[in-house]
Amino acid sequence: MPKISQRAQHMPPSPVRKLVPYAIEAKKKGIKVYHLNIGQPDIKTPETALKAVRENDLSVYEYALSEGNLEYRKSLESYYHSLGFTDLTPDNFIVTNGGSEALNFALATLCDEGDEVIIPEPYYANYNGFTSTFNVKVVAIPSTIDTGFALPDMADFEKKITDRTRAILLCNPGNPTGYLYTREELEKLAQIALKHDIAIISDEVYREYVYDGLSAVSVLEFDSLKEHAIVIDSESKRYSMCGARIGTLVTRSKKIRDAAMLFAQARLSPVLLGQIAATAAHKNDAQYILDVRKEYTERRDLLVELLNSIPGVVCPKPKGAFYCVAELPVQDTEDFAQWLLESYSNDSETVMVAPAGGFYSDPALGRKQVRIAYVLNTTDLRRSVEILRDALEHYPGTIR
Amino acid sequence: MPKISQRAQHMPPSPVRKLVPYAIEAKKKGIKVYHLNIGQPDIKTPETALKAVRENDLSVYEYALSEGNLEYRKSLESYYHSLGFTDLTPDNFIVTNGGSEALNFALATLCDEGDEVIIPEPYYANYNGFTSTFNVKVVAIPSTIDTGFALPDMADFEKKITDRTRAILLCNPGNPTGYLYTREELEKLAQIALKHDIAIISDEVYREYVYDGLSAVSVLEFDSLKEHAIVIDSESKRYSMCGARIGTLVTRSKKIRDAAMLFAQARLSPVLLGQIAATAAHKNDAQYILDVRKEYTERRDLLVELLNSIPGVVCPKPKGAFYCVAELPVQDTEDFAQWLLESYSNDSETVMVAPAGGFYSDPALGRKQVRIAYVLNTTDLRRSVEILRDALEHYPGTIR
Ligand SMILES: Cc1ncc(COP(=O)(O)O)c(C=O)c1O
Ligand SMILES: Cc1ncc(COP(=O)(O)O)c(C=O)c1O
Repeated sequence: MPKISQRAQHMPPSPVRKLVPYAIEAKKKGIKVYHLNIGQPDIKTPETALKAVRENDLSVYEYALSEGNLEYRKSLESYYHSLGFTDLTPDNFIVTNGGSEALNFALATLCDEGDEVIIPEPYYANYNGFTSTFNVKVVAIPSTIDTGFALPDMADFEKKITDRTRAILLCNPGNPTGYLYTREELEKLAQIALKHDIAIISDEVYREYVYDGLSAVSVLEFDSLKEHAIVIDSESKRYSMCGARIGTLVTRSKKIRDAAMLFAQARLSPVLLGQIAATAAHKNDAQYILDVRKEYTERRDLLVELLNSIPGVVCPKPKGAFYCVAELPVQDTEDFAQWLLESYSNDSETVMVAPAGGFYSDPALGRKQVRIAYVLNTTDLRRSVEILRDALEHYPGTIR
Repeated sequence: MPKISQRAQHMPPSPVRKLVPYAIEAKKKGIKVYHLNIGQPDIKTPETALKAVRENDLSVYEYALSEGNLEYRKSLESYYHSLGFTDLTPDNFIVTNGGSEALNFALATLCDEGDEVIIPEPYYANYNGFTSTFNVKVVAIPSTIDTGFALPDMADFEKKITDRTRAILLCNPGNPTGYLYTREELEKLAQIALKHDIAIISDEVYREYVYDGLSAVSVLEFDSLKEHAIVIDSESKRYSMCGARIGTLVTRSKKIRDAAMLFAQARLSPVLLGQIAATAAHKNDAQYILDVRKEYTERRDLLVELLNSIPGVVCPKPKGAFYCVAELPVQDTEDFAQWLLESYSNDSETVMVAPAGGFYSDPALGRKQVRIAYVLNTTDLRRSVEILRDALEHYPGTIR
């Protein structure tokens, strides 16, 4: 048999991959599974977007420009102008197949094999996949549940910088923790990046979904980072159109853009229909965003309150995105998550959660935690937590 | 400024990139440019596909499964059964964002930095982009225009194999030459691959478009290659739906599939709407394929005859795909292609061609050649060659 590459051998499987067969078996047995394990919201895609796709009158689905068609990049321009970044033009955007491809382009543009990227943990599990693809090393900055995943002293970032460090990668607001960076934190990170001449990759795909009247600070607000900042953006979560596969890499740096364009040209084109959907969605979206934010706020409030009311469960309140990380009174959430699917049901229902190990550079750090996505409506969420409470009462491994 | 990676610095620009600004300038001057330089057909997408997208009743564009949704993989299964590969099941396919992503996955799965892939040249220019992305070395097997790009002796392939060789990459039928592999050639390549335990990646995205009653032999026909063959397929050219971004990686090897799935999972999902379009297109497509094949045959016949009637032009007749490589009586087709856009016009019209240097590992080998795509209707093609003839009469650099 032909050899499989080292990079493939080092690719981490998705955190829930081992659980999938158990979920399939449970469903075969007639058990209803509430999926709290994935970032796939049940929220409707904006009607404007659905309509634009249904009413498109194309007769040939042609390749889009490698950087994205101008019409869509103009709608990105208006959107970023509305955020206050009025200097941006269509040339500052490279349209990608989801934020995922933008992350791939950013890493490919900045990093070679053996280079390092600093990432506060816990972090979005697929960062491990993208860095492994390019044999890039993740240098983690730990944050812990007992401080609500607050960042450590900014000086800790600086201590981790070596001559192989190419970037600091942030997720703001954060998946999985919902952590929101303060302006001061970002300012200090900007200083560190400039001092060491490394890039800041800021994954802002959950930017719209920040609660309690707070708002996310973008790295684009720092003029000093003109040559150093790359923003990862996506329509997936903003408009609940994850399957449209439309994201964008945003940068003011001509050098970075020109280099990233080489990867964009090699794969020819981002998705055409997704650009049509997203262009339409950006028009008059204010009420949609407000409604969805309100919905997520209610879900978060309900979920976090109910979770914390279960004996032994600790769940800091997230400020943004639509996930929370909770510590459970068990030794190993991988075993517990499997047990939920394999051996437990309550009135023929159970829940699937994501063991948090995959969100850490060292899975042991997340062994007692799970990530729960509030992508279900409040009725289903309420029922899900009820199931979880009951399950923890019956699980033989629950620590009392 | 932050450093740009070595891999980005080594990425070759697309072969026509330097020409694009001249094309834009020409258009600004009111000159009509016939685009013979790109693989974007003017052929209509099947009405079945357009209709399926227009009539979709989704209210949430959800992530598809990372390997592609079952419905679409079932339609791939039926299609491959119709080709005679009746052992394939939905598990043999990983749905990708175009054949481009399938090529990326194949290389990432098989190769590490410094590994080698053997490719007959001239070859699809973006193979350079994908290999550079992973710092993989292309080892070229030369074929030349004077033998109609016939492959050299199969033993030449074997001579190039080293302990870093991970795969032989073929394009059949070939872009840019239209070359069609014989069964005997493929049999010998299969033997070499097995003997040295390396993979064969066979890019068969133009499989349907083979002329003169011939047909393409797939590497899937060789049972012996069960563990060694990866097929790259795409709906882009088959159904003229390049912007839908739907392709697939096909393999019978569980080991390769499992490894490739890790990259598929990291980027979450292929395009949802494209899968809907492609699923519909596969239904009752026989007449569509016949009609399009007939159209391309007429275009090819016309184009090749007219090109060869120009003094000093040599153009072997391609057997498949929709490109031909022609040698022109000039020293350097990059200069000539630029002159066509910058300094020449005929009745306010000109043509854009792809200098063939980018299709070789050493651009010097293609310096006198261009690739011409027959993606325009016969009227436009006729006019384009008329312009080319006139231009060669007026170009100061024409060798007489
Ligand atoms: C933090 C973060 N970044 C990027 C992505 C990528 O999403 P997409 O490729 O759908 O834009 C996700 C998806 O869950 C995410 O959570
Ligand atoms: C030989 C070959 N392979 C693969 C591709 C990739 O096409 P796509 O990503 O649209 O499927 C192309 C496109 O021109 C091609 O010519």
